Amino acid sequence: MYNCIICRYHEIATKGNNRNMFERCLVENIRHLLRDVGVCRVHRVRGRVWVNRIDEGEFSAAELQAIRPCLARAFGLESFSPAVRLPVDMDRVREAALRLAPAVFDPIFAKQPQVTFRVRARRSNKRFPLRSQEIEIDLVTSIAKLYGDDRFRIDLGNAEVTLGCEVRDEFIALYFDRYPAPGGLPVGSNPRVLTLLSGGIDSPVAAWMVMKRGCPTDYITFHSAPYTPPETVDKVRGIAAHLNRFQISGRLHVCNLAPLQKLIRDHCNERMRTVLYRRAMLRIAEQVARRSDCRALVTGEAVGQVASQTIANLNTINRAVTILVLRPLVGADKMEAIRIAEEIGTMELSSVQVPDSCTVFAPSSPSTAVPVGLAEAEELKIPDYGGVIEKIVSDIVTIA
Amino acid sequence: MYNCIICRYHEIATKGNNRNMFERCLVENIRHLLRDVGVCRVHRVRGRVWVNRIDEGEFSAAELQAIRPCLARAFGLESFSPAVRLPVDMDRVREAALRLAPAVFDPIFAKQPQVTFRVRARRSNKRFPLRSQEIEIDLVTSIAKLYGDDRFRIDLGNAEVTLGCEVRDEFIALYFDRYPAPGGLPVGSNPRVLTLLSGGIDSPVAAWMVMKRGCPTDYITFHSAPYTPPETVDKVRGIAAHLNRFQISGRLHVCNLAPLQKLIRDHCNERMRTVLYRRAMLRIAEQVARRSDCRALVTGEAVGQVASQTIANLNTINRAVTILVLRPLVGADKMEAIRIAEEIGTMELSSVQVPDSCTVFAPSSPSTAVPVGLAEAEELKIPDYGGVIEKIVSDIVTIA
Repeated sequence: MYNCIICRYHEIATKGNNRNMFERCLVENIRHLLRDVGVCRVHRVRGRVWVNRIDEGEFSAAELQAIRPCLARAFGLESFSPAVRLPVDMDRVREAALRLAPAVFDPIFAKQPQVTFRVRARRSNKRFPLRSQEIEIDLVTSIAKLYGDDRFRIDLGNAEVTLGCEVRDEFIALYFDRYPAPGGLPVGSNPRVLTLLSGGIDSPVAAWMVMKRGCPTDYITFHSAPYTPPETVDKVRGIAAHLNRFQISGRLHVCNLAPLQKLIRDHCNERMRTVLYRRAMLRIAEQVARRSDCRALVTGEAVGQVASQTIANLNTINRAVTILVLRPLVGADKMEAIRIAEEIGTMELSSVQVPDSCTVFAPSSPSTAVPVGLAEAEELKIPDYGGVIEKIVSDIVTIA
Repeated sequence: MYNCIICRYHEIATKGNNRNMFERCLVENIRHLLRDVGVCRVHRVRGRVWVNRIDEGEFSAAELQAIRPCLARAFGLESFSPAVRLPVDMDRVREAALRLAPAVFDPIFAKQPQVTFRVRARRSNKRFPLRSQEIEIDLVTSIAKLYGDDRFRIDLGNAEVTLGCEVRDEFIALYFDRYPAPGGLPVGSNPRVLTLLSGGIDSPVAAWMVMKRGCPTDYITFHSAPYTPPETVDKVRGIAAHLNRFQISGRLHVCNLAPLQKLIRDHCNERMRTVLYRRAMLRIAEQVARRSDCRALVTGEAVGQVASQTIANLNTINRAVTILVLRPLVGADKMEAIRIAEEIGTMELSSVQVPDSCTVFAPSSPSTAVPVGLAEAEELKIPDYGGVIEKIVSDIVTIA
């Protein structure tokens, strides 16, 4: 029955000069997300993006089923609705509403005697003879006749069933369902960034959040072979692949930190190890970012989460680089990160227990406040620190 | 009837070595929040904080009413419940449950014939003769007898009414209501930071988020008198006062940026003005932070929100300082910031329209990508840039 999908955006609508760029980016992303469904044509008409079947025919139930999770990943979209596209003719609209109604109301009335209902009409075509309220009354009355007046309670605030009707210049669209999309800005409308991806819960959420702000992201992950098993990298590969379903492409740089970790173990104060690891990771990430045109680093760090994330240590870690470091979770609770991880499907992947590069040679009692000066002094004890970092960077393996 | 309040914490419970510090900080904060209520004694007993009346008597309804909004602002608390504290004796507990019941059930049965109900018992006192489930059955049965069995439907998952019962070594606590608190970490368990507070929606939310992560915050605000009216500062004073209800103290530094803004207007590229203002604000804030022992700056910046918040410009702005800059909203949508602002009560204050320091001499078409090198070159055109900053810092007025 449904032969188009209305896609609504929100924050983009507040953009001035470069709104056009945002819209083009959104359309391109939706095309990419729907590439495997195959039958879709995506285009924009004043303030809305529309998805049609290439042959303008009706979507099958299986096609709609395939399209839904794709659009639910489109950053920049606020919501979307499978709809029936009709000529600008009230008789045709009424007829279509009556045709759509049974699929919606029959299952409800099988369980309960009454339903709260409303029609919401939006008329951008001001030449249409009926005003919004008249359209609403016409459709409510017609559907109520089908089942009997007493089965409907009109509730304009919070109805169980809403029938939407958009009257445009070229056509009228009618829809019942409204599915949520993630909002934010289309990924690609801001520059590419590089996310430090561990196997933990936080960093995939941080990556997702910056994508939601429009930044496509590459990833860098650190392992410590042979002190960590191959599973350490496999896990992060899985997470990166999952995150890439939200964007057009994102490469994973795999980096073995073990050579430097051994030197830190052998030459530096044990209690500072984690901070020294993190400083090295940021430095390596900064080099990779600069040569792959990523404009900022992204981490899953949050204030006060663990010893390396005290304000003092975050400051000392941050001072290792000059590139901008985005920490979207810096003010978030663990429970908030977990909630998002569950919503975006990374929680399950992150929950697999494998050893993590940060825990290799980890001290039993890490310092919660390493001053910048002390960290720098410890690093000076490592023979050819810069050369070691360079070697590690040149050994990075990049997965497309 | 209620003679104590159970306060539950969450994230703190996951802390190891320094859990004691977090708990002490939480108790101190709750004492501070309740100082105006006057009658309260706050103490902790294994994994819970308890609030009693100093005379161990019952709280009046007015006192409970006054206590509720205070505890709802206690970072680190997950929830709290007014409770009846009883001797470790099942007869007394049953008696109290029957005494409490009418206030809860009478209003419900006035509107509906049936209610879903459950009792949740927690027995940390293992010498108590009844097990948790036996306590639950005892209390459900007793209350059901009072109204008639047919009026209760037991629902262990999602009941309309829950009666809680905590059996401890020294006493048993019985409660019906469970009020939410903000979670996070007790403010003061992490070092003090300095928030750049504008009159906008985002920066108060950012300040609240870092407080929620345990950092008390001072504030710095910029005005441009005589180009901005006194209302610009009044508005921020109001916001800072409101935010201070969530912490023990936070000073507001009021800074006039106009002398530098005039120089930027006269000597620098017009399209870069906003970025140059922001760099100056961070520099000034960094100096204030260092001399007032604040360990990081906090801003309400979000990626892609406005021209000065593109990745390129955030990077150029960030490069003006070496101190850690926390941007808790960097990955958030405007709608998320608005939702929190409404929840914490700053939305209304931020909605008052007054001119803002950033908009003074603001260009009609600001650059969305000022390279660091260009910004530095523009700053070199300003005669005695460093001296001007120093003068502005020395003219700062601090409000306790």
